[in-house]
Amino acid sequence: MTTPLAAKIAREYGTPAAVIDMDRVERNIARIQAACDAAGVANRPHIKTHKSPMLARMQVAAGARGITCQKLGEAEVMANAGIDDILISYNLIGDEKMARLAALQAKANMTVAADNSTVISGLPRAAAASGRPLSVVVECDTGRKRAGVETPAEAVALAREIAASTGLQFAGFMLYPTETGWSDAQKFYDEALAGLRAHGLDAAMVSTGGTPNMKNVGKLKGATEHRPGTYIYNDRMQVAAGVAGWDDCALSIYSTVVSRAGPDRGILDAGSKTLTSDTGGLDGHGLILEHPEAKIARFAEEHGFLDLTRSNTRPHVGDVVRIVPNHVCVVVNMMDEVVMVRGEEIIGTLQVAARGKLR
Amino acid sequence: MTTPLAAKIAREYGTPAAVIDMDRVERNIARIQAACDAAGVANRPHIKTHKSPMLARMQVAAGARGITCQKLGEAEVMANAGIDDILISYNLIGDEKMARLAALQAKANMTVAADNSTVISGLPRAAAASGRPLSVVVECDTGRKRAGVETPAEAVALAREIAASTGLQFAGFMLYPTETGWSDAQKFYDEALAGLRAHGLDAAMVSTGGTPNMKNVGKLKGATEHRPGTYIYNDRMQVAAGVAGWDDCALSIYSTVVSRAGPDRGILDAGSKTLTSDTGGLDGHGLILEHPEAKIARFAEEHGFLDLTRSNTRPHVGDVVRIVPNHVCVVVNMMDEVVMVRGEEIIGTLQVAARGKLR
Repeated sequence: MTTPLAAKIAREYGTPAAVIDMDRVERNIARIQAACDAAGVANRPHIKTHKSPMLARMQVAAGARGITCQKLGEAEVMANAGIDDILISYNLIGDEKMARLAALQAKANMTVAADNSTVISGLPRAAAASGRPLSVVVECDTGRKRAGVETPAEAVALAREIAASTGLQFAGFMLYPTETGWSDAQKFYDEALAGLRAHGLDAAMVSTGGTPNMKNVGKLKGATEHRPGTYIYNDRMQVAAGVAGWDDCALSIYSTVVSRAGPDRGILDAGSKTLTSDTGGLDGHGLILEHPEAKIARFAEEHGFLDLTRSNTRPHVGDVVRIVPNHVCVVVNMMDEVVMVRGEEIIGTLQVAARGKLR
Repeated sequence: MTTPLAAKIAREYGTPAAVIDMDRVERNIARIQAACDAAGVANRPHIKTHKSPMLARMQVAAGARGITCQKLGEAEVMANAGIDDILISYNLIGDEKMARLAALQAKANMTVAADNSTVISGLPRAAAASGRPLSVVVECDTGRKRAGVETPAEAVALAREIAASTGLQFAGFMLYPTETGWSDAQKFYDEALAGLRAHGLDAAMVSTGGTPNMKNVGKLKGATEHRPGTYIYNDRMQVAAGVAGWDDCALSIYSTVVSRAGPDRGILDAGSKTLTSDTGGLDGHGLILEHPEAKIARFAEEHGFLDLTRSNTRPHVGDVVRIVPNHVCVVVNMMDEVVMVRGEEIIGTLQVAARGKLR
């Protein structure tokens, strides 16, 4: 079974193709902005999900305070497109990165994160080269064991280091609590804040993150903003996390069934170079809307292996199916463009402008 | 510990960066060409690994008969660069793809694969539009349960269908035996060949594939060519498969240690958007040459989680390390360019010209 739109996409663009429904994109932007507004925190969407200046501008127009980027290459694309309040939520190290950060400072108000002294010691070079003070937040680990200092005492020590550095401005704290770790995060933050104040400092910016954490947004007393990313498209992980329904999933991969060599199996033209091997902890690699009981069991680079044993409906070779990916952020990162539709109508393509840049 | 070259790469390009050593690339090209020559089969390298016209031309100059592509977007880049003998080892379906295939036929001698009647029934449109006969091989499954007919009888039936189609030329069989499945493949092929001959047909092209299968190359009696891809760069999977040593690994990811928030752990600036979540069945996500006992345990999109518990040497924040990825083909697909070096000297960058195209 191929929907009329899927047939049209295949005819005009071929498959596999990533298709975004702009009605849903707009609804997602509005819904999460309203949720942040209601929670009394600013919205600073993470653009790593869409990597598109047009979508970032739509997020800002809807009320976002600014945006979050994970790397300089993303921030450069966004600053060139006129976005003027950018947090790079990442430890930046090295002369090459400091030169680029200085150039960014000339175009936008930049804030960067740091969780160690090596990072902090490099940042004044960027500030000096730009001739403007650079805002720095201390990244705090509250359970993920990713980046971030592990104790409030370390957070305070780094805050003081930043405040004492020529050209740097201590801006506050960046947290990324786990979904169940918000009371721990509160404890960490309260202690760090007390430490700050004991040294005559304060945290103007207290940033939490994550789309699955939209159910917790506003829970941290003192938080000033939230950094959700995936919500603009949503995916199978967000549905599993209970923060989106299938109708909120704005991006799907249109893929052709290219082989049915066995009765219980099939091959899709979307493999790990389209859907990626990120499982997001889920079973199977995406939901096929036309055959929800079929399982995308594994991948070769350009082959998706369909297990049809538990599916009562079975596709034919040539059918074009729609797949909601497990983790949409990494899927968008695989392609130069996505196709925009509104309901059944094709609008055109949108460049994934900030992809392909490793750094 | 940062090598002088790593420091130079970080200074000039920043990290993460993919670096290829052209001495090793040339040695790999020569070595596998010699192995194919010695086995008496032609070499038809799969360019999905490097996606670079320059490297494809080097492979052809070294003696390759032609190249293999997995999709039209790759073949278009290669045909535009003057490669004139291209196998697309994939079932192509739909008018959009037939139009592009016809345009390709005007530039290069194209062969495509098919494993079902739906695919075969579409191909005459491409042949008619190009005004030239189109070569078609039947893809045979010999154990992977990917694409490919499952029985010799089906292979013969499709061969006859191709031979009877206006504008199509039955060219032979495409196989991709598992590493241990070559005697099964021989049985399949012998039976299919006997069936062909009973109907007055023959297989001019009998193609096997895979770099791990280089240890089997030539084993299939009747094989005319082999399609190795990964050998140009090699990776941790090829070393594990016993077909390459660490010195044959021509590509590594240079990555900065950006955080060491705990004594037993660290964070690299190479995450799943650089190294991908493909494990290739191996433990950990790559070998760190400077710290071979350290484990890249898991990923966020831009974070590699380093587990240092079993490592006697521990990197400092700011160190630039070199990582041999598990599966190099998917890693190269993440980036617009790689940096070329020769020993300790940086030569420049090479575009990954055929990437970012989903189809």
